[in-house]
Amino acid sequence: MADDTVVIDDLERILLTEGQLEPQRAEELQALLGKLSLKNTISLLERLGPNRAALVLRLLPRARSYDAFDALDSAHQAELVDALGDAPITEFFGSLDPDDRVALLDELPAEIAQRLMQTLAQGQRDVTGVVLGYPKRSIGRRMSPQVPMVGLHDTVATALDRLREQAADAESIYTVPVVTSDRKLVGVTSLRTLFTADPDERVEELMSEPEYAHAADNDEETARWFLPLDYLALPIVDDSDRLVGMLTVDDAFDIVEEADNEDAARGGGAEPLQQPYLTTAVVKLVRSRIVWLGVLAVSALLTVQVLDAFEEALQAAVVLSLFIPLLTGTGGNTGNQAATTVTRALALGDVRKKDVFKVLWRELRVGALLGLLLGVAFGLLLGAIYGASIGLVLGLTLTAVCTLAASVGGIMPLLAKAIGADPAVFSNPFITTFVDATGLILYFLIARAVLGI
Amino acid sequence: MADDTVVIDDLERILLTEGQLEPQRAEELQALLGKLSLKNTISLLERLGPNRAALVLRLLPRARSYDAFDALDSAHQAELVDALGDAPITEFFGSLDPDDRVALLDELPAEIAQRLMQTLAQGQRDVTGVVLGYPKRSIGRRMSPQVPMVGLHDTVATALDRLREQAADAESIYTVPVVTSDRKLVGVTSLRTLFTADPDERVEELMSEPEYAHAADNDEETARWFLPLDYLALPIVDDSDRLVGMLTVDDAFDIVEEADNEDAARGGGAEPLQQPYLTTAVVKLVRSRIVWLGVLAVSALLTVQVLDAFEEALQAAVVLSLFIPLLTGTGGNTGNQAATTVTRALALGDVRKKDVFKVLWRELRVGALLGLLLGVAFGLLLGAIYGASIGLVLGLTLTAVCTLAASVGGIMPLLAKAIGADPAVFSNPFITTFVDATGLILYFLIARAVLGI
Repeated sequence: MADDTVVIDDLERILLTEGQLEPQRAEELQALLGKLSLKNTISLLERLGPNRAALVLRLLPRARSYDAFDALDSAHQAELVDALGDAPITEFFGSLDPDDRVALLDELPAEIAQRLMQTLAQGQRDVTGVVLGYPKRSIGRRMSPQVPMVGLHDTVATALDRLREQAADAESIYTVPVVTSDRKLVGVTSLRTLFTADPDERVEELMSEPEYAHAADNDEETARWFLPLDYLALPIVDDSDRLVGMLTVDDAFDIVEEADNEDAARGGGAEPLQQPYLTTAVVKLVRSRIVWLGVLAVSALLTVQVLDAFEEALQAAVVLSLFIPLLTGTGGNTGNQAATTVTRALALGDVRKKDVFKVLWRELRVGALLGLLLGVAFGLLLGAIYGASIGLVLGLTLTAVCTLAASVGGIMPLLAKAIGADPAVFSNPFITTFVDATGLILYFLIARAVLGI
Repeated sequence: MADDTVVIDDLERILLTEGQLEPQRAEELQALLGKLSLKNTISLLERLGPNRAALVLRLLPRARSYDAFDALDSAHQAELVDALGDAPITEFFGSLDPDDRVALLDELPAEIAQRLMQTLAQGQRDVTGVVLGYPKRSIGRRMSPQVPMVGLHDTVATALDRLREQAADAESIYTVPVVTSDRKLVGVTSLRTLFTADPDERVEELMSEPEYAHAADNDEETARWFLPLDYLALPIVDDSDRLVGMLTVDDAFDIVEEADNEDAARGGGAEPLQQPYLTTAVVKLVRSRIVWLGVLAVSALLTVQVLDAFEEALQAAVVLSLFIPLLTGTGGNTGNQAATTVTRALALGDVRKKDVFKVLWRELRVGALLGLLLGVAFGLLLGAIYGASIGLVLGLTLTAVCTLAASVGGIMPLLAKAIGADPAVFSNPFITTFVDATGLILYFLIARAVLGI
């Protein structure tokens, strides 16, 4: 069977080297690729640039190449369109499910998207058009429009016959919506249930109350509540409760993964990459980071101003400057912890916008407790070295900064959500900058009061 | 149908208030809960403390309560064990699939786990035992041991009969492993394929080369490569390629979500919470954060020492202290961006340990480019205000610090992985601390050279 590391090493040796590929290598490549499992094929494609990846796709057995292309992110697929050339891309495009097709179209320039749409047979163009009709970020745009369905009053035998007919088109036939004669969703059953039931039983006795979403619902929210239910597909209805599609579990997973990628990148102060790291150009990496880095550096000018305002105090006691990175660092860390926790809870639906006071009250207590613990420990330690009054200043400042940082860090993601911004963007780096500036003000106010400068 | 926000508001008004619940409220609650969709039931449970959640589970219709309990995280389930009481927990425990049962057992004290195992019927105890036999973090521990299977030489009709018999026990019958007479895995087919095929065809003509994993394989890695393939279940084999279980897509998703939760929390410098945020006690929140915060604060003492060593330079030019937070902040942000990107790429399998030099070379260029852009901009800006030589010092320092920070941030997750540590832990906060200290050294060395102090 297929898990051969020797094959992978050979392939990478050929494919990851720079420069022209000798033509006689193609046969060798084809033979090696034939031995590779789907898993390893995908993982290889994710490490190659567009030209080499397109070459691999062309050399793969046809069915395998469709599966592999399907498994790539749509942004990555879009990058391969040019490299693949006209005839192959038409085939790959046709082999995708309508919702995956739309995701790819969204990544392409309008002109190319239109040309690709023209290559589809009329029936496929129609179902793709249905999905394209829903706005971006709605679940309608991620659903499969070709759905199986059975009638409320069908017998099991009739229902199974219907499913057998529908199997050619539908993306999945395992979760089976039950509808009235005017296509209103009234229940859900499964192929498994029908398959093991008495053929003469009626569908209405074998169905359960349906969980469902509306086509206009937000895609990430829908995917997040649907996945823990452990269903294979979720019926999607229009405004009059008529069945228009299904969200399959693999598409729901893609939505959540994309959202998690975005949150991970933005939490670290960068825009998410649209393709695998090693195949992203250095200039693109710079572009994904420079804007946030610049914005944050400009906000950090606030700290220069704060320190400038307290320059007299700094002149009077240069020792105060020794602890600036310790204080801002600890404040930043405390704020990040709170922000990360709340951002994640928000994404998972454990916390909602209206919980802002609950969160504030929790984080206030958590921050005060953390600040007290650190303040006492570091106040005593540094007091022993730099003198009691410095120790007192540091202990008080740490307590105040941690309380402030946790509170701000906790509610910032909720406020971001309330104004329609991405909570992850406002979580880590922004809080650090804000806490740096306010923490320094607290520091010098406390120092002035305690040291009398 | 069920999406009633009035019902939810009523329920939350009753359940989220503190204090004793009046007994006559139970009936009202039961009526309201009966109207709630599964989605909203789960979301309600995730916002309640253990006692209230247990009450809700007891008042729900039986089938609904099993589904809702099943959808909770195993750590959250474990917390409900005490509150539920002996008889109900036995029922809930029995209703879980063997792999979910093992996940719950892992969260419980040994004594309670043993008592729960005793309540299972012999057959169920045996299959649960199979899963328990595999080590933690292996995919064997997350698989479903009761799998459907058909023979290589079966006709479609025979295969369908077999599946009908196996349907009572198996978690999923949609992906169907094909085995030899001694249970060796030779192919995979699906209920859909068999269901739509000619009854006289042979299974061997309808199967494809199987993707599979070994029971001892790492759970997160297996789940991450399996999910993009869009299969519903993955056959799991033992060392002699004999079929021992299946990993279903919902369990694979749970594994990835847990890992993402852990990465998100650790990237923010906290340990992941084991239960929903709002139901976690304040003391537990403090505990999830204090260790990392303390460790980071202790490492930050390094910055105190660095500044202490350069106190003379600080005395000579107090103006230098004004830019400390700007420089450490920007360095930290640059390092975080690189670390976050690489940590995510590592989790997704886009980057591997052996790519360390490739990553270093990319991040070196990205960091240098970012540093140059910021260095020129801020050097000019701050030079205009604080004098040309200060501007020069800041420009040079920003370039150096960004180059250093991106390089260290990029390779740190790979080094962490190489020594078997969690890359997310070593990414953001640790890099900040490291870059703070080394960045300050660079700053003062450059300042000394340029300003001649």
